[in-house]
Amino acid sequence: MARELAAFFEPESIAVVGASRSPEKLGHVVLRQLLEGFRGRVYPVNPKAEEILGVRCYPSVADLPEPVDLAVVVVPAPVTPRVVEDCGRRGVKAAIVISGGFSEVGNEELERELREAARRSGVRLIGPNCMGIYRPSVGLDTLFTPSDRLPRPGPGDVAILTQSGSFGGAILTWLAMEGRGISAFVSYGNRADVDEADLLRYFAEDPETRVIAIYVEGLRDGRGFMEAAREVTPSKPVVVFKAGRSQRGASAVRSHTGSLAGSDAAYEAAFKQCGVVRTYSTEEFLDASRALARLPTPRGPRVGIITNGGGYGVIAVDALEERGMEVPELDKATAERLRERLPPFYPVGNPLDLTGSSTPEQYLAGMVEMARSDVIDALIVMALYSVPLMEPRRTTDYILQVLRDYGKPIVVVSLDVTPEVARENSRLEAEGVPVFPSPERAASALAALWRYARLTQPLRLRR
Amino acid sequence: MARELAAFFEPESIAVVGASRSPEKLGHVVLRQLLEGFRGRVYPVNPKAEEILGVRCYPSVADLPEPVDLAVVVVPAPVTPRVVEDCGRRGVKAAIVISGGFSEVGNEELERELREAARRSGVRLIGPNCMGIYRPSVGLDTLFTPSDRLPRPGPGDVAILTQSGSFGGAILTWLAMEGRGISAFVSYGNRADVDEADLLRYFAEDPETRVIAIYVEGLRDGRGFMEAAREVTPSKPVVVFKAGRSQRGASAVRSHTGSLAGSDAAYEAAFKQCGVVRTYSTEEFLDASRALARLPTPRGPRVGIITNGGGYGVIAVDALEERGMEVPELDKATAERLRERLPPFYPVGNPLDLTGSSTPEQYLAGMVEMARSDVIDALIVMALYSVPLMEPRRTTDYILQVLRDYGKPIVVVSLDVTPEVARENSRLEAEGVPVFPSPERAASALAALWRYARLTQPLRLRR
Repeated sequence: MARELAAFFEPESIAVVGASRSPEKLGHVVLRQLLEGFRGRVYPVNPKAEEILGVRCYPSVADLPEPVDLAVVVVPAPVTPRVVEDCGRRGVKAAIVISGGFSEVGNEELERELREAARRSGVRLIGPNCMGIYRPSVGLDTLFTPSDRLPRPGPGDVAILTQSGSFGGAILTWLAMEGRGISAFVSYGNRADVDEADLLRYFAEDPETRVIAIYVEGLRDGRGFMEAAREVTPSKPVVVFKAGRSQRGASAVRSHTGSLAGSDAAYEAAFKQCGVVRTYSTEEFLDASRALARLPTPRGPRVGIITNGGGYGVIAVDALEERGMEVPELDKATAERLRERLPPFYPVGNPLDLTGSSTPEQYLAGMVEMARSDVIDALIVMALYSVPLMEPRRTTDYILQVLRDYGKPIVVVSLDVTPEVARENSRLEAEGVPVFPSPERAASALAALWRYARLTQPLRLRR
Repeated sequence: MARELAAFFEPESIAVVGASRSPEKLGHVVLRQLLEGFRGRVYPVNPKAEEILGVRCYPSVADLPEPVDLAVVVVPAPVTPRVVEDCGRRGVKAAIVISGGFSEVGNEELERELREAARRSGVRLIGPNCMGIYRPSVGLDTLFTPSDRLPRPGPGDVAILTQSGSFGGAILTWLAMEGRGISAFVSYGNRADVDEADLLRYFAEDPETRVIAIYVEGLRDGRGFMEAAREVTPSKPVVVFKAGRSQRGASAVRSHTGSLAGSDAAYEAAFKQCGVVRTYSTEEFLDASRALARLPTPRGPRVGIITNGGGYGVIAVDALEERGMEVPELDKATAERLRERLPPFYPVGNPLDLTGSSTPEQYLAGMVEMARSDVIDALIVMALYSVPLMEPRRTTDYILQVLRDYGKPIVVVSLDVTPEVARENSRLEAEGVPVFPSPERAASALAALWRYARLTQPLRLRR
C-alpha cells in the first residue's frame, strides 16, 4: 500500500502537463524548478509548443516517450479528468493535480468525476487544489510559487503534510527562515484520492522521515486516519495541528474548504487513543515536531532545570507545571553530590540556579548529577552567556556529552546573542539537541515528548 | 513623589563609586559605558586611583566636586550602607546599589542596614542586587555586562521594569534582536527602597513611556502596588508578567529571591481590579506591551479577519475565540458592500478570504468595509505575499490609511519572507501597526488590548 505512493516521492521521470512558455504561469514555474533541481527525466506536455526552456515538448500525455512515474497537472479544472484518464492509458502511475476549481468552490461534481477517472484508470492522485510536493533530497519541487517569493527549507527529517496550501506556505517560510530542514512537504488540498491515512503509511516507512507533522482542518475519513495512525505512532511520532477547534473556527472551515470540521471533542479523544500528539498553535506544532525528531523518549514527566538565571528557572517551572509536567525536589543523594561539586554558597535544588558565577564545568556537574538521578526524566538547560565565566563552546560540548552518556532528553533555552553563541546553538541542533528562544517553548516541547511516550505506551503493549 | 525619582532617570551628573582600572571589573564596565554614552558629568570614585580611563578620580564620595544627582555603587556589600550615608552627606540625591550579597543570600540584616542608611540620609535607592538602569535616550547605562555580551535595544516607548536581572537580560537581548526599542529598562533587584509602586508613578508621568511592562516574582508591598496601579492604568497601560504562578513555581521564587510569592489567585484578582493587563508568557508579555504602546483602544471584543489564506483565517478564529475575543458574522450592509467591491466568486464572510487571486486593492476594500462596520472593533490583517498579484508596498500604504481613517486597532500577521516584505513590515511597526509572525501571537495582542479597555473602564468612570 505505502509503496504505491513511491511514484510520488521517488519518481525517476516526471511529465508537466500544462507546461507553459510564459514565465509568470504556474506551468512554467513548475517545469523550470523540476529542470533545475530534479535528477530524473522531465517532459513538458503542451499541444501548442515545440519546446519549452530548451526541452522538447510533447503534444499530449499519450505522446510521452515513456510511461512516466509522475504527472504534474496544471491545466484548467474541467480538463483534468480527461488528462488523468490519458495518464492511466499511458501507464503513468501517479498524478498531482494542482489546478483549483473543485469542491472548495462548491464544484463537487467535477471533483467526483476526477476521483472516478483516477480510480478507473489506476492512477493515484494528490490534489486537486493543492501545491503538491517538495522533496528536497531528490530535487522534486512542484510548488508553483518561485523560491524568491516562497523560501524553501533544506533537507531534514520532518515530513510536513498540510490540507491548507497557504498555511503550508507560511510553515515553509518559517522553517526556511529558522534554518530548519524537512524530509518532505505535501500540500494535498482536496484529497480526492490520496488522503492523510495514505500519506501516514507512506512516511511511516520513509527512512528520511523521523516525525510526521500534519496540519488539518477536517478529516474526510476519520476512521481511516485513526487506523493508520494507530499503526504508525508506536514507531514514528505523528504530530497534528487541527484547526477549527472553536465553534466559529469550525464554521470558518466549512465555508473555506466546503468540508465539515466535526466535533472537536471527538477529534481530541480519537487523537489520544491512537497516539497522535496534538498541538494547539503554530509554534507548538513546529517545536514539538523538531523535539520529537531529535530526542529520546522520556520515561516520565519529571524535569530537572539547570540555569544561571533564577527568574528563568521560575518561568520554566510555571510553564512545565501548566503543561502537565513535574519539577520534583531532588533526591537526597543527588543534592548531596551537587553540594560537594558546587561552591558552598550555591543554593542546591530544582531548578538548580548556578548564579552569575556559573562556569561551564558547573553546568556539567549539574547536568550529570541530574541525569544520573532516578527522579529526573528530562532536562531543560538554560545558559545565559552574558555572565563573565560562561563559555558557549565548552558548555555545548558538555551538553552533548551528557545527552550521549545518559540518554535522557535535553532541551536548551538560548538566544543567538553573539555570533559565537549562534554557532554553538546551531551545533546543538545539528547534534540532536533542540534549542528554543524561551522557557515556555522548551517546556511545550518536553511536554509533547512525554505526551508521545504516554499515549503510545498502551499501543506498543497491545502489539 | 514621582519627581523624586527624576535623579535616577534624568541626572545631570553621576558618580561611579567603586570605579575600577581593571577592564573585567564591573566598576570599570559601568564607568566606561557612562563615559561613552552619557551626556552629563561623570566622576569615578576610588581611593586608590588618580585617574581612570583618562578621567580624574576622587578618593571618596565626600570629595566629589559637586553634589551629584546619582551615584552608581559597585563596592562590596558590607561597605554599601556607609557609602550611602556618605552620599547623603554630600547631597547626592539617588543611588543605584548594584552589589549583591543581601537578602537574596539570606543576609536580611545587611539589607535592613542599607535601607535605614538610605532613609536616614534622604537618599533614594534602587537595588541592591540589581543591574540598575538603561535609558537609551540619555545614554544612561549602568548594566555591567558589556554590550558585546548583552545587546542593548535602541530608544522606544515601552518601559521595562524587572525584579529578575537575568530575565531582564534575556528580554533586552530579545528586543535588540527583534529591532524593538524601549524608553527605559530598570532592574531593581531586592528593592530595599524604591519599589514597583514608585517606579509605576514615575513612568506614569514620563513622556517617553507609553506602556509600563513589569516582570515580577512577588511584590513586597502588594497594597502599595495596587494603589499606584489603580492611579496609573486609566491613562497608561501597565502590563505584568508575574512568575511563580504554580505551587512549585512559587516555591522556586522563595528559594531564589528569599521572598514569598503569595497566592496566585489573590494576585490575579488584584491585577484585574486595578486595571493591570496580566500576561502569562515571555512572548505575550512583549507582544502585549508593543501592541498597547501603538494601537488605539478597541470598543469591544469583535474582530474582523482579512486574509488570502483560508487556513490562516481558521487558525486566527480559534486563537481569538480561545482568548475571549469574538469573530462575528458580518452585518448585511457590510457583506453587501463587500460583494459589490470584490469579484463575484469570492466567498464573503468573516474571516474574509481574498484567495490566491488577491490584490492590494481588494485588501483595501476588505479593510475599509470591515472598519466601517458597527459589528467590528478591531482588525487582523494577514497577507501572504507569495501569491502573484500581491504587492507589499501598496498593501502597507492601505493598512496605514485604514488605521488613520477609522481609528480601529489593526494588527498584521506577516513573516519577513523577502527583503521587500521585511522593509514594509518595519514600516508598519514604525507607523504604529504591530506585526506578528503567527495568527496566535496577533490574537494574543488584540486580546490584551481589549483586556486593557475592559479592565480600566470602571476605573475611568470612578474618577
